[in-house]
Parts: sequence; structure tokens; C-alpha cells
Amino acid sequence: MGLRRRIKRPRMRNRTQKKGMPPGSLVYVGEEHQEEVTVSAIEFDEHEINEQHNVSLDDLKPKIDSEKITWVNVNGVHNVEIIDKISKMVGLHPLTTEDILNTEHRPKIDFFENHLLAIVKMLNLEQDQLDIEQVSFILLKNTVITFQEKKGDLFDPVRLMLKENKGKIRKSGADFLFYSLMDVIFDQYLIIMDDMDDRIAHLEGNIMEDPDNHSLQDINEYKNTILQLKKTVWPVREVVNKLINRKVPYISDSISFYLQDIHDHIVQANDMVETSRGQLYGLLDVYYSTLSMKMNEIMKVLTIVSTIFIPLTFIAGIYGMNFAHMPELSLSWGYPAVWIIMIIITGIMVMYFKKKNWF
Amino acid sequence: MGLRRRIKRPRMRNRTQKKGMPPGSLVYVGEEHQEEVTVSAIEFDEHEINEQHNVSLDDLKPKIDSEKITWVNVNGVHNVEIIDKISKMVGLHPLTTEDILNTEHRPKIDFFENHLLAIVKMLNLEQDQLDIEQVSFILLKNTVITFQEKKGDLFDPVRLMLKENKGKIRKSGADFLFYSLMDVIFDQYLIIMDDMDDRIAHLEGNIMEDPDNHSLQDINEYKNTILQLKKTVWPVREVVNKLINRKVPYISDSISFYLQDIHDHIVQANDMVETSRGQLYGLLDVYYSTLSMKMNEIMKVLTIVSTIFIPLTFIAGIYGMNFAHMPELSLSWGYPAVWIIMIIITGIMVMYFKKKNWF
Amino acid sequence: MGLRRRIKRPRMRNRTQKKGMPPGSLVYVGEEHQEEVTVSAIEFDEHEINEQHNVSLDDLKPKIDSEKITWVNVNGVHNVEIIDKISKMVGLHPLTTEDILNTEHRPKIDFFENHLLAIVKMLNLEQDQLDIEQVSFILLKNTVITFQEKKGDLFDPVRLMLKENKGKIRKSGADFLFYSLMDVIFDQYLIIMDDMDDRIAHLEGNIMEDPDNHSLQDINEYKNTILQLKKTVWPVREVVNKLINRKVPYISDSISFYLQDIHDHIVQANDMVETSRGQLYGLLDVYYSTLSMKMNEIMKVLTIVSTIFIPLTFIAGIYGMNFAHMPELSLSWGYPAVWIIMIIITGIMVMYFKKKNWF
Amino acid sequence: MGLRRRIKRPRMRNRTQKKGMPPGSLVYVGEEHQEEVTVSAIEFDEHEINEQHNVSLDDLKPKIDSEKITWVNVNGVHNVEIIDKISKMVGLHPLTTEDILNTEHRPKIDFFENHLLAIVKMLNLEQDQLDIEQVSFILLKNTVITFQEKKGDLFDPVRLMLKENKGKIRKSGADFLFYSLMDVIFDQYLIIMDDMDDRIAHLEGNIMEDPDNHSLQDINEYKNTILQLKKTVWPVREVVNKLINRKVPYISDSISFYLQDIHDHIVQANDMVETSRGQLYGLLDVYYSTLSMKMNEIMKVLTIVSTIFIPLTFIAGIYGMNFAHMPELSLSWGYPAVWIIMIIITGIMVMYFKKKNWF
Amino acid sequence: MGLRRRIKRPRMRNRTQKKGMPPGSLVYVGEEHQEEVTVSAIEFDEHEINEQHNVSLDDLKPKIDSEKITWVNVNGVHNVEIIDKISKMVGLHPLTTEDILNTEHRPKIDFFENHLLAIVKMLNLEQDQLDIEQVSFILLKNTVITFQEKKGDLFDPVRLMLKENKGKIRKSGADFLFYSLMDVIFDQYLIIMDDMDDRIAHLEGNIMEDPDNHSLQDINEYKNTILQLKKTVWPVREVVNKLINRKVPYISDSISFYLQDIHDHIVQANDMVETSRGQLYGLLDVYYSTLSMKMNEIMKVLTIVSTIFIPLTFIAGIYGMNFAHMPELSLSWGYPAVWIIMIIITGIMVMYFKKKNWF
Repeated sequence: MGLRRRIKRPRMRNRTQKKGMPPGSLVYVGEEHQEEVTVSAIEFDEHEINEQHNVSLDDLKPKIDSEKITWVNVNGVHNVEIIDKISKMVGLHPLTTEDILNTEHRPKIDFFENHLLAIVKMLNLEQDQLDIEQVSFILLKNTVITFQEKKGDLFDPVRLMLKENKGKIRKSGADFLFYSLMDVIFDQYLIIMDDMDDRIAHLEGNIMEDPDNHSLQDINEYKNTILQLKKTVWPVREVVNKLINRKVPYISDSISFYLQDIHDHIVQANDMVETSRGQLYGLLDVYYSTLSMKMNEIMKVLTIVSTIFIPLTFIAGIYGMNFAHMPELSLSWGYPAVWIIMIIITGIMVMYFKKKNWF
Repeated sequence: MGLRRRIKRPRMRNRTQKKGMPPGSLVYVGEEHQEEVTVSAIEFDEHEINEQHNVSLDDLKPKIDSEKITWVNVNGVHNVEIIDKISKMVGLHPLTTEDILNTEHRPKIDFFENHLLAIVKMLNLEQDQLDIEQVSFILLKNTVITFQEKKGDLFDPVRLMLKENKGKIRKSGADFLFYSLMDVIFDQYLIIMDDMDDRIAHLEGNIMEDPDNHSLQDINEYKNTILQLKKTVWPVREVVNKLINRKVPYISDSISFYLQDIHDHIVQANDMVETSRGQLYGLLDVYYSTLSMKMNEIMKVLTIVSTIFIPLTFIAGIYGMNFAHMPELSLSWGYPAVWIIMIIITGIMVMYFKKKNWF
Repeated sequence: MGLRRRIKRPRMRNRTQKKGMPPGSLVYVGEEHQEEVTVSAIEFDEHEINEQHNVSLDDLKPKIDSEKITWVNVNGVHNVEIIDKISKMVGLHPLTTEDILNTEHRPKIDFFENHLLAIVKMLNLEQDQLDIEQVSFILLKNTVITFQEKKGDLFDPVRLMLKENKGKIRKSGADFLFYSLMDVIFDQYLIIMDDMDDRIAHLEGNIMEDPDNHSLQDINEYKNTILQLKKTVWPVREVVNKLINRKVPYISDSISFYLQDIHDHIVQANDMVETSRGQLYGLLDVYYSTLSMKMNEIMKVLTIVSTIFIPLTFIAGIYGMNFAHMPELSLSWGYPAVWIIMIIITGIMVMYFKKKNWF
Repeated sequence: MGLRRRIKRPRMRNRTQKKGMPPGSLVYVGEEHQEEVTVSAIEFDEHEINEQHNVSLDDLKPKIDSEKITWVNVNGVHNVEIIDKISKMVGLHPLTTEDILNTEHRPKIDFFENHLLAIVKMLNLEQDQLDIEQVSFILLKNTVITFQEKKGDLFDPVRLMLKENKGKIRKSGADFLFYSLMDVIFDQYLIIMDDMDDRIAHLEGNIMEDPDNHSLQDINEYKNTILQLKKTVWPVREVVNKLINRKVPYISDSISFYLQDIHDHIVQANDMVETSRGQLYGLLDVYYSTLSMKMNEIMKVLTIVSTIFIPLTFIAGIYGMNFAHMPELSLSWGYPAVWIIMIIITGIMVMYFKKKNWF
Repeated sequence: MGLRRRIKRPRMRNRTQKKGMPPGSLVYVGEEHQEEVTVSAIEFDEHEINEQHNVSLDDLKPKIDSEKITWVNVNGVHNVEIIDKISKMVGLHPLTTEDILNTEHRPKIDFFENHLLAIVKMLNLEQDQLDIEQVSFILLKNTVITFQEKKGDLFDPVRLMLKENKGKIRKSGADFLFYSLMDVIFDQYLIIMDDMDDRIAHLEGNIMEDPDNHSLQDINEYKNTILQLKKTVWPVREVVNKLINRKVPYISDSISFYLQDIHDHIVQANDMVETSRGQLYGLLDVYYSTLSMKMNEIMKVLTIVSTIFIPLTFIAGIYGMNFAHMPELSLSWGYPAVWIIMIIITGIMVMYFKKKNWF
């Protein structure tokens, strides 16, 4: 029922492997992927659009240099050679390339004279599994390059907008394309936080009905997920802040208002993360309390039964003794008298428990 | 007894629906409403006032443009078309319109050359249910436009002031009208926090009398409500701060002192939220402690009864044995001697428990 | 034993009543008082002093305007009319008057061209009850006006200083009088925090001796009191900071060092509030632990008695069976043998519990 | 075993006594001391040094005024008259004198034209008792005056350095002497934090072996001590910061690097306080867990014994019934059969508990 | 299984020993080491490289002064004399030398006219033991001096890069060498945090299977380790920040981008520390909950067995009484009737427990 965290072991091995390398060494850090790294490119201006899959690296260079707006999308960063070549084509610093190859990188933004590098996380919540995929953006004057860890992304609405020439995207520059891609990623944050909210409400229902040890594991799993989301969402605030305040030639003033809008969404996503965290801690209290109530109930049953029957058994034990001289035993009304005494004792006990509200 | 949270499901569906849309797409995000979106307008100056319900969009334009102060109130933002038309009439940015349509928006304020947009939450606590309604304000030179989620608001005192020409509202500009509307909303925050305080005190009484699992759910419900209130009240501080510090042509200096007053109220509301939160955590401690005390009491009863009667039953068991040679059995004073021993043992036990303060 | 919080209901009703009023409407918010609002005035210079009780409002105006230093003290702010008249006499903004009438106001300071308004809380701890009374100060060039909620205050030492011409108070301006009154209020904070410290130490002693559910209510009562003190003391820091840093004509530079001294005291009071809070949380731990230890002790008694006697009773039960062929029963040493076995078993059990340190 | 807090009652009485006094009234606030206040002075330059005990106040004036560096040490501040005279000799503000007399003052630093006042706490941990003594420093151009609460201090190394002309202290000004004295005090903070670390480790060992209610009192005692240390160490950071950043004529630039060194130590002491606090909270968890484990163990013993013997006793009870027609009783293998059944039941139970890992 | 903290006792003794020393006294504070302090030097330029072990102090001076880039590595700082001589060779301030000798120093950076001193911690996690070793860096124009506590470090990759002339290290200045060494240390932080993550996940598995008191000690051990890591990693952020922002002649602008990269890693390491801390607190909840569940389970077994058999035993006791007149005893169907009643009672109990979900 709860979320499963993705396996992290392969990543670690990669980082350890990097241990003995000089700084700037290009090593892929991340999950292993079998599929090939592919590059696609969409070239467009207001009048025409041209999409090409599996672009060869040689074909890429003219596209990047052309006056038309180009969106180059790289699916997979586990092929160091390809990433390195593209990086050099654009003139990236080796450390920037290293950051792109490290899929465990913290969200950040770096401004250079002719381009910027932005690293953010793309979230997906499928089949109870939060999938965090790193997307690196290179924004040049007329080109946006996106590096994804694997095939499959959230960018289809943008592709549709481009193809169908909806909105102002075809009439605007690379910066608006960059904004549109970012916007899709950050909108998803809000959708996932809404989903988390739902799941937590659902878990709350489960716990109140019947809390088991599994419930706590679920709470814990969610807390870890929220920790992950916090780590993902929190630094983005700074990224967007820098985007808004930094004046660079490849971002026009006209999109500053759009960036402000993104900023609002990120702030809201952060708020939602905090709220979910608060709710999870509340759930923990409910869980412990429900456990305690159950314990109390168990103890009450034990206490009621024991407290009623142990004294009665004692009385029965008395008259089970084999003393030669026990006058009560030979009385004809002895046996019914014992029964009456027992019933009276039981009655007193029951009244006592009733008064204590134990029933 | 506790507060019930409003149902959030319909909202989510809306947001998810928005997933594949380009930025700036106008989609209503919020609860479904059946009622029609209506527009009312109050036009006034120092000498006359003119209120009109169900204003058509065509009639609206001249009112907004006129020199007289106009308050346009839009009930409902679920009709995208109407909101869009009004927005365009005033010259709003598409993203601003998008924010007005998103009833889940975080409180914020945006300043433009000729107008400002302020989004705040209007609170209502009716029948144990906290109702959070978003109100968006557009302040132009001579016009205030308010967008509410549904009919019914807190603004009747302002309407009365306008009609009866009380105070300086009819003699002042649109900015004072804007302040007066804000003031009514934020005063309500304090009233609701006072109410919460009352409810928490009431809950405390209940828990001390008889804590059940329901009590914890109530505490949790209140904690979630406080979380919601915090999310509502906290960002307003920044909104009001910006209002005070930003110099814009459509806000005159004369109301800066009034804004400062609002600021004081918001700070106090934040303080009260924090205090309530502290009290709820204190309640949680009381709750757990009361549970623990109950458990101790149950265990004491069990222990006292068992500790007294188990040894006595053992003694009775001894003399219930059927050994051929048990000299005590044939003694004539055997049976009363056993009774005396049992009474002595019971006495010792009772004294022991008395000493331990268990009665 | 614990502190009782003052009743808050009447206040709320007042605030709710204010709900439908335009901003700046003058409504008293606070506890109901029967006694009349009285005004007293002390007029003094280096050479003479003149104290007058029950000053009429007409006599007040010349006193305020005179060159002599005047301290006007208003006992009670529940008579809106009187407060309004005094306010207008001095030329206060209607919102300032509203703040004075609202006895639930947060501590604050507002600077105007000719006067300042400072609102702080005067604390009193009498008969286990923390009494928080609001005092508003108006400081003019030659006049200090103080508004108190009710008769009785901490200002007697200042009155004595004035009458006996002690220190430099008669030789200084209104600002020094203002400082002296503030100083008395803030010194009281430290005294009350010392008292709280004492009470918490006392409570700690009680809890360690015999914790009952009442103890937790006491802890909780103290925590709420500390929350209240925090709310009272914390914002004063900002008030004094503003006093120190703001240059206004009606405060001379010569008292800036005195204000710094007040600031030190407020910082220390805040520290003490935090320390008391930390100690209360520590107490909570002691309380829960003592409950747990008691539970363990109860369970040990039950377990020891049960564990010894249940097996013995079983043995007795065995030889109470009525089987025709039970060879042990007819042995002449059967009965003593059973006793010996029982004593051995008891011995083993006792040794086991000794080893486990349960005695 | 734990630390004992020093008695605080006498202090409080002093503060309360101060209640009715005008600001600037000189009243000693602190523990009562019987010993007389004594003044000692060390006058030195590079070539000669002259130490004098029990200096009379008349002899003091020329020493302070002389060109030689003088260190005046005042043991005890409970004689208001003496402190007042020395203060006036140096030209202190009455409020400064008041601060010196208040041994409960928060660490602080005040800069004046010709001198500075620094108040810090000198720590000592002797016989499980944390002793906090206030030391006030007056730094003039050629003189350092130290006010201590009582005889006995940490300054012997400095005295030795002076006498034996070690290091640069005899060749430097009063500011270096001031720094050296401060340094000794702050070095002690680190030593005490190291000691606390040791004690906490020791306590951890005790708790793991055998936690009793005393352990929690010890944890709590340590937490209170850490709270005290935090209050002592934290504000010193600001004091040293101001010392570094403020340019005053009586502190030469040459010692700024030494002050930076002090700053590093204070930051480290603060870190250590935080770490100790974290460890104490960890200890609390260990303590509660150990209590819980003990409870589980007790319950297991009870449950195992009861669960095995209660069914067996029931079986024995069955065949102790006196029905006329109980065919099993007359069977010759009845008795051994019952034994076998009982042994089988016991075996099943034992296996069940083994499987549950309860042994 | 858990981490063992290194023994801290020897350090403390050193610090205490330092107690009576004047400031600037050179005393080694740290663990005792037997091995001799050795100095090695690598001198290189783009064309040649020359490594020398066990350099004598006399040979060191020309190396430091030469135009070639030199890396001097000092293994061990427990020989005060050697460290002092090297310090004087470079012209260090005595307090700087004191800092190098104090292996308990907080990470920091100090800038001087001709050199800088940076103190950071080198982490190693070997055989479940976190080893924290202090490394002090002196960066001069053409020389880097590193002081380590003992032999063995993480610098082998840098040595390899130097020898094999990989990357730009041989072509760059001392500042790039300094950066490369720092980079290796900080990369290790991430590797260790990854390792901690793994260990915590492993511990989580153990606790869910079978929590014992040892588990809590492990959690506590990890919490202390995380506290240590926080103390190690957190101040490095400030160190690197100062490195980036301070303009000094011995650091060229060209490596500022590399420093930014280090900064990113440190921020990420801090994030990971916080995440691990959050996970440990989650583990604590799992641990307590599992304990509670076990307790509930134990109590259920006890309650079920007691509640079923105590009433049955009572019935058996009834018919074990020896009254002369007990009509049931002589009925021929009495015995089977009692059995049937007992079976019915048992059935009802079992159904009750089934309904309560206790099986």
C-alpha cells in the first residue's frame, strides 16, 4: 500500500568508483540503463517546424548554430562519450559536463557568458513508486538542450503546443521554450503533492480502522518520501530566484513575469510539503494512541475476567478442602448459599466496573 | 464535535486536468459550483451611490472607466469566459487571470503599472466547518474588483458604510475601499482564532473527563485546521508588508497608516495561530498521560485482586488434596485455623498496598 | 497548586461585536469592568509637584499644554467616550485610539510627528493567577499619558520618587518619566520569571514524590502561562529596539543609555522564558518516566505473586484429583514430599527474581 | 551522581527587594557572602612588577592614573559602597555600576568613550557542582579592573606569566592583559564541555546497565546544566563579535587576531553545548527504551508461567470434581494419561514460545 | 553492528594540561601517537616532478622558496618542535601554529597577506568506525603545506595525477593543487554519507525483524555519528564560501568555478546529513512501535488464555466442593453436561476474540 523507495545501491557503486579520479573526470553516476542514448531535435520558427529523432552528432552542430529556435533532447546520460561531445559542441566547462553526468546532483543553476545550466528533478508517481529523474537544461541564445536520464517525460504538452502552434511559444525565443519546459515540471510537483495528500488521508483512514505494524512502516515510508520531495523542491526555490534576478543576454525581460509565476508555484509546493509533513506527524500520534487504546482494551478484558473469577474460584476452593470438621458442608442450604454469595460478589464487581466505565 | 475538513477531491481533478495545458491556459481550479456567475457593481462618490446587481459585461466597461469610485464584485470564478472578458476589459496579463481562476492559489500580491492583484483567503467557521474561500482583488485608479468563489461574503458592513455614508469611505478613493474590504477579512481571522481558542479549551475539558480515541482524532483535526490557518495567515504578512513598502500611483500615502494597522492584526493572528498550536501539543500530552493513568488504574485493580486471592486459593488447594496422611485435616481446629491464616495474609496484603498508596 | 488562566470569554464577545463595524470604529475590547474610569494627573518641575485625582476632562487640557512635565494616568479604558475625548485633545489618529481601546493588542510602538504610542503589558502574579494588564503610553513633548485597564498598578515607586524628589526624575523631561515607568514594568518581568522558576522547581519536587494526573495539568497550565509570557515579552524587544534607534524630537539623546539598559533586561527576560520552557519539557519527561516506573513496579508485584503461586496451585490441584489409582496419595511421605517440592520451587523462583533484581 | 544546581533563593529575594527602587539605584543582587570585599592591584611595565593586596581605595586612584599598566582585581561585589567608590573613581555611569552589582546579569559588552564594560561568566565544575561566577571587566587605556563575586579564580596562569615575564604580556598594553584574562575564562568553557561529555558518556553506561528513576533525574539535571551553559556561552559570541568589530582607542589593532582566536573557541564551545544537548536527548530515548524492554521482559515471564499453568490447573480441576459418574476416574491408566496430556500441552506451549522468541 | 565512537579520553587530558598556559603556548591537543613525525615533499612544474620522503627541515626551506610548485605533506602534528620550526619557516602567527597543533579545532579558514590557513576534517569509515582526522592546509604563492594527524590519507589520486601528469594539475599553480586536495576530501564526505544511508537502511531491516535493546543503542550510535558529521560538514560551508568570495593574490580567478563546484558538494553533503537524521528519527518511531506491538501481542496471549481458562477452572472448582447436598453431582448426565457448558463457554470466548481480531 505504501510507497516503495527506488533502489539506490547502483548509484553508490558509481560514486565510490569515482573516488580516485581527478576533479573534472567524466564519470556517469546513476542507475544502470541498457537502452541506447538517443538525441532528438525540434527546430522551429513562427512559420515552420521540423522534428527529427535519432539525430547524429554531426547533424546536431548546424541545428544548434542556426538562427531558428532548436530544442535538443538527449534521452539518457549514461553514455559519457556522447554527452562529452555535445558538451564540447556547445563549449561547456568540464565541471558542468560532470554535473550533467551525475544524476544525483542537487538542483542548481549556473550562469555563464553565453549559456546557463539548470539542473532540476522531474517527478513521477507511478504504481506507488515515486520516480525522481534528473533533467539538466542548457539554455543558449537560440537553443535549449535537455538531458534526461531515460526515455519518457512530461514534455508532451509542450511538443503539442509546438506542433499545433498554440499560444505564443512558436513566436517567442528559446527562453520561452525553456520556461515552458520548466513550467511543466513544476506543475507536476503540485499534482504529486495533491496525490500525497490523498494518500495520507487514505492511510489515516486505514490506521483508525486497524493499526498494525505495517501502518507505521507506511508512515515511515511516506516520511522518507516527503524528505525526498523536500530535498527536490526546496533548492528549486533558489534556482528560480536566481533566474528572476540575474540579468543575462539569453533571457529576455518579457518572460520575467512568467518566471515569477513559476516562483509562486514552487513556494506553494514547498508549503504543501510542509503541510504533508505536519499531517504525517499527526498520523503518528493517532497510530500510537490507537495502539495504546487497544492495549487498554485488552487489559480491561483480562482484568474484568480475572477480578470476577479469581475470588469465586477461591470460594469454591475453600469448600473443596477435605477438613474433617467443616460445619458448612453438612448444612442442607450450604451449597445454594455459596451460589448466592458468588452471585452477589459478581454483581458488586460488575457494578464497580460499570461505575468505572469499563464496559 | 471536532472540525470537519472540506472535501478536496474535486479540486485535484481540476488540477490534473490542467496537466497537459500550455502555461497561461485559462482553467478553473476549484470546487464545482452550479450557480451562475453574477456581477454586481456599486458606483459612488461623496454625493451619490448607485448599486446594481447582475450587471452585464457590456455595462461594466463604462463603470470601470468612469471617474466615480466603483466596486465591482464578481460572485464565482468557475465561468472561465466571464472572468476572461473582465480581465481583458481591465487589461490583465493572462497569467494574472490564470491565478484568479485557481482557487487554490497562495496569498500573494503583484504590482503592475496601472493596477495590482492581491489574492487572500476569506475564512468562515460555520457548523464546525472551516470554510476557506479565495478572494482576488484588482485595484485600479478608481475601481476595485473583487472575485469571490461563491455568493455570500463578509463585506456587508462595508456595503452598509457605503450606503449610510458612515466614516470617510465615501470621501476617499478606491484605495480606501480596498483597505476597508481587506480589513474586514483580516478582522475575521482574529475572530476565528478566538473561536479556535474556545474550542481547544472545550476539548481540553472533554479529554480530562474521559479521553477516548475520538479525542485524539479531534486533536488531530484541530492540528490540521491550524496548519491550514497557518498556510492562510502566514503569507498575508508578506502581502501586507509589500503593500506598505511599495510606492504605486494608485495607492495614496494617506492610507499607509491604515495598512500598518492591518499589519498589526496579521502579526497578532500569526501569534494566535502559534499559541493555539502550542496548546494543542500540550493537549496531546494531557491525552497520553490520561491514557497512561487509566492503564495504571486497571493494572492496579488486577494486581490487587490477583495478589490477594491467588495465594489464598493455593492454600485452599493444599487442603483439597486427597493424601491419605494429612494430619491437619483431622484436627478439629484445622478449618478455623486456615481461615485465620487467610485473614492474616489478606490483612498483610492490604497493608502493603495501602503503604504503596495503591488504594 | 497550578496557575489558573484568567477567563477570556467576555473579550471574545466584544471582538465579535466589532465584526460589523467600519475600520476606526471605537469599541472597547476587553473584560467588563463596573468601576468608573478616572483620570489623575501629576504636574511637576524641579521645584514643585502637584498631584490631582479625578481630574475633569476640562481641567486636563491646560495641564497637557503647560510647560511643566505632566503625567496623566487614566484608570480604565472601557468608557469609550472619555478615551475618545482625551485622544482628540492630544490629536491622536482614530486608529491609535482604537488600539488603546483594544486591551488584547500586541505590544507595539508607533512614532508620530509630535508623539509616540507604546503599548505594553503589565504583569502581576497574585494568588497563583497571572494577571496581564495592558498599559498604553502616549509620550508628548512635556506630557506622558498612561492608559490602564483598571485601578492598581506597579507605578508607586515612581510616584514616590516624584514626591520625594529622589534621583534625577524631577530634573529631567517627560522622556525620562516615560522611561522610568517602562523600567518598572519590565523589572517586574524578571521578578515574575524568577517566581516561575521557583514554582517549577516546587512542581518538580511534587512530581518526583507522587505524580498524579493533576501534575500534568499543572505542567500544562505552566506551559500555557509560559506561552502567554512569551507572547507578552517577545514583541517588547522590538518595541525597545525601535525606541533606541528612532530619532524623534520628544526623546532626548541623554536617555538612550537608559533605554539600552531596558533592552538588556528584556533580552534577559526572554532568555528566562526560554529556560523555563526547557525545564517544563524536562519535567514532562520526569513525569512520564515516573508513571512508567510505577507501572513497572505494579507489574512486578503481580508477576512475582502469580509466578510463584500459580505453579504451586497446579501441584495442589494435581493431588486434589479423584482418580481411583493415584499411588502417591497413599504413600505416608507423600504429603510432606509435596510440601518440600513446593518450597524448592518457591526458592528457585525467589532466586530467579533476585537475580533479575526485581526485589 | 548527577550535578546539583546551586541554590538560587537568596538571589531572588534581592531582586524583589529592588522592586520599589528608582532606576540606577545601587543594590547588590546575588548570593550572600560574609567575607570582606578586598582589592588587589598588580602594576607592571616591561621592567618591573609590583603586586599589592588589600589596597585601600585611596591608594588605588594613583595606580589607575599612572602610565604603567595596572590590573585591579576586586574580590566581591556585595559591598555596594566600595564598588560605588571605585566606579566613581573611573567615571562609570550609574547604570554601569548597577550592572556590575547585579551578579545575575547576562553577558554583555558596552563601549564608552574612555572605557568598556564587559560582563562574562567564569565557570567551575567542582565536586559535581557547576559554579557560575560573574566577572565584570573595565578596560581603560592603561588599566584593567576585574570584579569577581568571591575569592578564588582562574587567573593564576596570568599572574604567573606576569611575574615570570613569560610571553609578550609584560611588553604589551592593558588590552593584551584584558585579552589574556578573557582567554583563560573561555578556555575553561571548552574544558568544562569536555568534562560534561565524559559525564554524559558515564551516565549512558549506567543507564544501559540498570535504569532507575534516579537516572532520569540525572538526565534532567544535565539538561538543566546544559541550558545554563547555553545561556552562559551563547551571548558571549556576540560580546566577542562586538569586540572584534568595534574600533575604540583603548584597544590596539595588534590584538584583533587574538580576539579572532577567542571567537573561534566560543563558536566551538557553542557547538559542543549543542552536541551535548543532542546526546542527552539520545540518552532519554535509551532510558525509555530500556524501561520498555524491562516491562516486556516482566510481562513475558508472567505470560509464560500463566499460559502454561492455568490450563494445566484447569485439567486438574476437572478431575477434582466430585460427580458420581466420572468414568475416567476409575480407569487404571486415567492418572498417568492425565500426566501425559499435561506434558504434551506444556511441550506445545514451550515450542510456541520458542517460536515466538520469548525465551 | 553499529558504529563505535573513537576514544576521546586522551584528548581531554591534553586540553586540561593546557589550562595553565599563556595564550599562544604551543601544546599538542589530540590522540597520542608513537610514530615519528615525517615530512615529504613533491616539487613539480609542467616538465618535471620530484618526490622526496623524510625531508629534513633544512632541505625544506629552499623547496618552499623555489619558483616550482611544491606540496609539503607533514604526517603527524604531535611533535611540537617540528611544527613550530615549519611554521616559523613560512612566517605563521603563533596562534595559527597553535590551531594546527589542536586536532580538535573547528573547520575554519583564515586569510593573511601572503598565505591562508584552512582547517578541515578528513573522514574515513573503516570497520564500522568513523575516523575523523584533521588536515590543516597552508597555501602560499607556490607552495601547499598539509598537516595530517597521522600517516595514511585520501590523497593518492592527486599523487597519481601529479606523477602521470593527468589533467591540468601540473600546468596550474599551487591554488589548483590546493583545490584538488580539498576536492578529494569533500568527495569522500558524499561517499560516507551514501554509506551511512546504506547502514541505516540495513538497521531498519534488522529492527523490523527483531528489535532488541541493542537496536536502540545502534540508533543512538548513528545519531551521535550524524551529530559528529554535522559538526564536521556544516562549518565547511562557510569555509568554502569565504574561499569563493575573498580576493587574495595567491588564488587566481581561474579556479573560482572549481571552488563553486566544491561548494555544491558541501551543500549536498549537508542535505544528506539532514536526511539521514530525519531517517534515524523515523527509525526510532519504528523501533518503539515494534516494541509496543510485541507488548500487545504478549498481552493478547495472556489475556486469551486467562480469559478462557479462569472461568472454566471456576466451574470445575464448583463441582469439586464437598457439600453434602449437591444434587448435580449425583445426576448421571451431570459430568457430560459440565463438559458441554465448558465447551460452549470456550466457543463464545473464541468468537468474541475473533470478532475483536485478536487471533
